[in-house]
Amino acid sequence: MNFPSKLIEDAVNEISRLPGIGKKTALRLTLHLLKQPESSSQSLSHAIVKLRTEVRYCIICHNISDQEICSICSSHRRDKSLICIVEDIPDVLAIENTAQYNGLYHVLGGVISPIQGIGPDELKIDSLLHRIDTAAADDKVQEVILALSATMEGDTTSFFITRKLNERGIKVSTISRGIPIGGELEFTDEVTLGRSILTRISYNAE
Amino acid sequence: MNFPSKLIEDAVNEISRLPGIGKKTALRLTLHLLKQPESSSQSLSHAIVKLRTEVRYCIICHNISDQEICSICSSHRRDKSLICIVEDIPDVLAIENTAQYNGLYHVLGGVISPIQGIGPDELKIDSLLHRIDTAAADDKVQEVILALSATMEGDTTSFFITRKLNERGIKVSTISRGIPIGGELEFTDEVTLGRSILTRISYNAE
Repeated sequence: MNFPSKLIEDAVNEISRLPGIGKKTALRLTLHLLKQPESSSQSLSHAIVKLRTEVRYCIICHNISDQEICSICSSHRRDKSLICIVEDIPDVLAIENTAQYNGLYHVLGGVISPIQGIGPDELKIDSLLHRIDTAAADDKVQEVILALSATMEGDTTSFFITRKLNERGIKVSTISRGIPIGGELEFTDEVTLGRSILTRISYNAE
Repeated sequence: MNFPSKLIEDAVNEISRLPGIGKKTALRLTLHLLKQPESSSQSLSHAIVKLRTEVRYCIICHNISDQEICSICSSHRRDKSLICIVEDIPDVLAIENTAQYNGLYHVLGGVISPIQGIGPDELKIDSLLHRIDTAAADDKVQEVILALSATMEGDTTSFFITRKLNERGIKVSTISRGIPIGGELEFTDEVTLGRSILTRISYNAE
């Protein structure tokens, strides 16, 4: 594609580096920006630079935070005996938006993947164990919930962490895998359906 | 949606102001930027600001340009007796990419639309007439090609310009209606668009 101006070309190239945005979409966005007042380009660009230069991560759970310790970790209303392990930051947002969970989080920053060269040392697993080992008596961790992707890498990571936590006598659970709410049985894939039969939940009183 | 950080929230809000980008996509882009080196956010943001503050428009054809007169208007290899009238900048890019046209352009900046309150005075029509009237003897305009969208507004504008040009005895043509009626010029494929320039239809009575 030929551009009438180097400025347009630069902007299109930069914008099309973002995931899921091709040259045509980038051009559309560029021309949109040109039609907007200068202040809107300024504030967009300011927000992007500020985000990248000023962002901080919670030293406890490694979630994004404005302070040294994030609002979840520092909250007195959260159940500190419960830690939910997630792969990345969007997962925290997703679980928070369900409003069904009141414990803390721990962001691993990925899952164990030998193909991509990611071993346990690349993840925040040591930080998790340290966190559990050094918790104050009042905030003793009772249960760890594994909320990792239902992939081979996710399962490998869950297995690795479970083994480490079992050594410490901590209860480990995983979010249930099964048919999504509202999902039709006949359209569910065989692996999910098979697993949801094996891990069926009893309706009987115990 | 609740965000763990004001920085994220600001970035998501700014990015989701772009057309066709919702909150979820904006969040995905934001988290992508966080994973990239700081320099890539810097250069993205630099390109956006530079684009908006330094962009210039050609004083002859009103296309985007790096100089006072754009590379097309100042080129010695272009046929200066031929002017193609387009609605907006992406249309120039679209026609240039067909490599079927070797004349000049004139960007109107829109089409006549009484509903949106756009009359002939809001467009660069006076500038077009002035350009034609004051052309040097060597660069006399022989033909004007109307390449406006095949919509009612586009046709109204074509009709208006045709009348003005007929008074001056200039040949007026329109790109052939290979474009589906109701279709937008900038989304037309290059082959169709290229052919519709070659098979333009004269508006003059023979």
